[in-house]
Amino acid sequence: MTERTRLGISVALIIGLFLSACSTLRGTGDMGVVVEREQGRLHIIEHSGNTQLHLVDGLGDLSHASVVYSRDARFAFVFGRDGGLTKVDLLKGKVSKRIKQAGNSIGGAVSQDGSLVAVSNYDPGGVRIFDSATLDLVADIPAVGAGGARSKVVGLVDAPENRFVFTLYDAGEIWVADLEDRVNPEVTRFRHVGQQPYDALLTPNGRYYIAGLFGEDGMVMLDLWHVERGVRRILPQYGRAGEKLPVYKMPHLEGWAIADNRAFVPAVGRHEVLVIDCSSWTEVARIPVHGQPVFVMAQPASRQVWVNFAMPDNDTVQVIDTERLRVVKDLRPGPAVLHMEFTPRGERVWMSVRDDDRVAVYDTVSFERIAELAVDKPSGIFFSSRAHRVGL
Amino acid sequence: MTERTRLGISVALIIGLFLSACSTLRGTGDMGVVVEREQGRLHIIEHSGNTQLHLVDGLGDLSHASVVYSRDARFAFVFGRDGGLTKVDLLKGKVSKRIKQAGNSIGGAVSQDGSLVAVSNYDPGGVRIFDSATLDLVADIPAVGAGGARSKVVGLVDAPENRFVFTLYDAGEIWVADLEDRVNPEVTRFRHVGQQPYDALLTPNGRYYIAGLFGEDGMVMLDLWHVERGVRRILPQYGRAGEKLPVYKMPHLEGWAIADNRAFVPAVGRHEVLVIDCSSWTEVARIPVHGQPVFVMAQPASRQVWVNFAMPDNDTVQVIDTERLRVVKDLRPGPAVLHMEFTPRGERVWMSVRDDDRVAVYDTVSFERIAELAVDKPSGIFFSSRAHRVGL
Repeated sequence: MTERTRLGISVALIIGLFLSACSTLRGTGDMGVVVEREQGRLHIIEHSGNTQLHLVDGLGDLSHASVVYSRDARFAFVFGRDGGLTKVDLLKGKVSKRIKQAGNSIGGAVSQDGSLVAVSNYDPGGVRIFDSATLDLVADIPAVGAGGARSKVVGLVDAPENRFVFTLYDAGEIWVADLEDRVNPEVTRFRHVGQQPYDALLTPNGRYYIAGLFGEDGMVMLDLWHVERGVRRILPQYGRAGEKLPVYKMPHLEGWAIADNRAFVPAVGRHEVLVIDCSSWTEVARIPVHGQPVFVMAQPASRQVWVNFAMPDNDTVQVIDTERLRVVKDLRPGPAVLHMEFTPRGERVWMSVRDDDRVAVYDTVSFERIAELAVDKPSGIFFSSRAHRVGL
Repeated sequence: MTERTRLGISVALIIGLFLSACSTLRGTGDMGVVVEREQGRLHIIEHSGNTQLHLVDGLGDLSHASVVYSRDARFAFVFGRDGGLTKVDLLKGKVSKRIKQAGNSIGGAVSQDGSLVAVSNYDPGGVRIFDSATLDLVADIPAVGAGGARSKVVGLVDAPENRFVFTLYDAGEIWVADLEDRVNPEVTRFRHVGQQPYDALLTPNGRYYIAGLFGEDGMVMLDLWHVERGVRRILPQYGRAGEKLPVYKMPHLEGWAIADNRAFVPAVGRHEVLVIDCSSWTEVARIPVHGQPVFVMAQPASRQVWVNFAMPDNDTVQVIDTERLRVVKDLRPGPAVLHMEFTPRGERVWMSVRDDDRVAVYDTVSFERIAELAVDKPSGIFFSSRAHRVGL
């Protein structure tokens, strides 16, 4: 090879690198990920043109995986069932860093200022908090309940003022960790809140942390503006209400939709969506629906909430008008609709149709299906605009 | 020069280009712009590290300029007073395209689906709508009122279902343009709504369009869920209430803060913030403040609203607790605080201190000033997270 040829090849290589760098120069406001549950992979997508950009492999066990974002909306933090915490670069389409931080984890959250990422673990039960830039361990909070035993942790959310709030399933406790001193978090513990709190949510205004109970009826609520008032019971009838109804899937609480000071809440075991007044925290109406609701999600800037269902009705999605309090649209996206995600301003919704190995995109005005993407057993869909929201 | 030297220089040049491309590979979720009002320039900034990234020149007359974003949060659309519409690339730090689309314009909005950008013009009075990718003209809507004369247009916002809503100042009308057929928008006109509607806002849920009146007291409201009900009067006392109070600056309506179903609204001419119940649209309280309020802005996921003031009190910012309904903090950022912008999750707020040629960044928990940036006569500050919100 002559020197000239060698140099020519170098130039070509460099131009190639340059073009590949240029091709990834793009805004990250319309990006997101779709989880391939069984393959342990992530599709990186964009929702302006509804296309797949990258397929990222090697993420471990992604059954029930969830995803949150860095404050610049460039990196996804993926929480796997195998205790893996993976930081994925949306622009480069690859893993930036991956650690095994526990044996079994269930979810996570990014602090309000973006500097920390917290993971809730089943095994060993507790919360571990990492620097979001490096994934170095910053703090470890073992979940040892009043009885002295370690507990599984569920319902972890970030809350205003750099706090994380989470629930101890086995111990029946709610803890608030204040990360102002990030190495020595100040933890406030609420003991004996109820039997087996299994999931929780933070209302969109960042004020109320609400946990559902698996071991008894009712829910428990902590007002983060007034933690000194402690945890109180709300909705004493919420749950199976003593009846031994078959429950095919416990509804997701993250899915609570709040519109006009009313919450739209999946009933447990019943074919109903409950309407709750958010001032009195009492039930004001019930809306009959097609099956046992799993997610009840508010379409942004709209009066519509969208509902998917547990087996055997999980081929269906219904749309409720929150003013008329009734179903206004029935859709049959396909077998096993597991998750829905709205574009940030609500004009479209993406749905995982697991048993048909595809994601379907619907227009929220015409209810028409406007795009489809091939994805192997899709489960969770998470758009990067979540970077800007509290309580996820 | 030998061939080897020439090739060496080419390689170095290409590496330089490559590095410069790499240096702009970044997420756009934490970016934004600060307007230099008198220089006609834009600082492109990022609010993770609070730094300036680029200075973009040649934007024409930026007095009272406003900015909205493309749905991928990469491009800023800048509306100048000289009728200029400029599309700025945040990543490259330069103008992508600039057109002079009218003689005098006042603001604009991006459609819910991101495909269109609309501009409201004083001269010639009307709204022009452009393709957001190319800035090609898509539709022209002259604002000819019931009296047959052309009117200045104010209070333009995007609304759900690809609509734009705007107000005819001289004609006293509110128009809703439906862009489902983008070349032939369907326009619904509400005539004789009141005298000289001077500004308007859309509530964050995308439902109520509310315009303030300069020529008389009271406000007018259109319920976008029920346009068939027409425009109705609310808050009949809102305004100067017959008294000839000196008004140093009409308050900005965009700044309405809504918390817990109550709106916090700047009084006109009085040292008060009004508290409005959003179900009955009546005044329920008044909070005494330091001066004539201009912007009353809700801190995201918080019970705090922040208020700045007209001359001669415009060196001050006050923080109101929306639960206790009183001022809880006084800040003196410096002379002529023109605008404030919160980081998307509310942990920090940026303020333009015009007469000190700087932008100050405050922590919203400690109220401490944590950064300062040198900017010549800063006015508006607009973060890219606005890409994901309706009604701006």
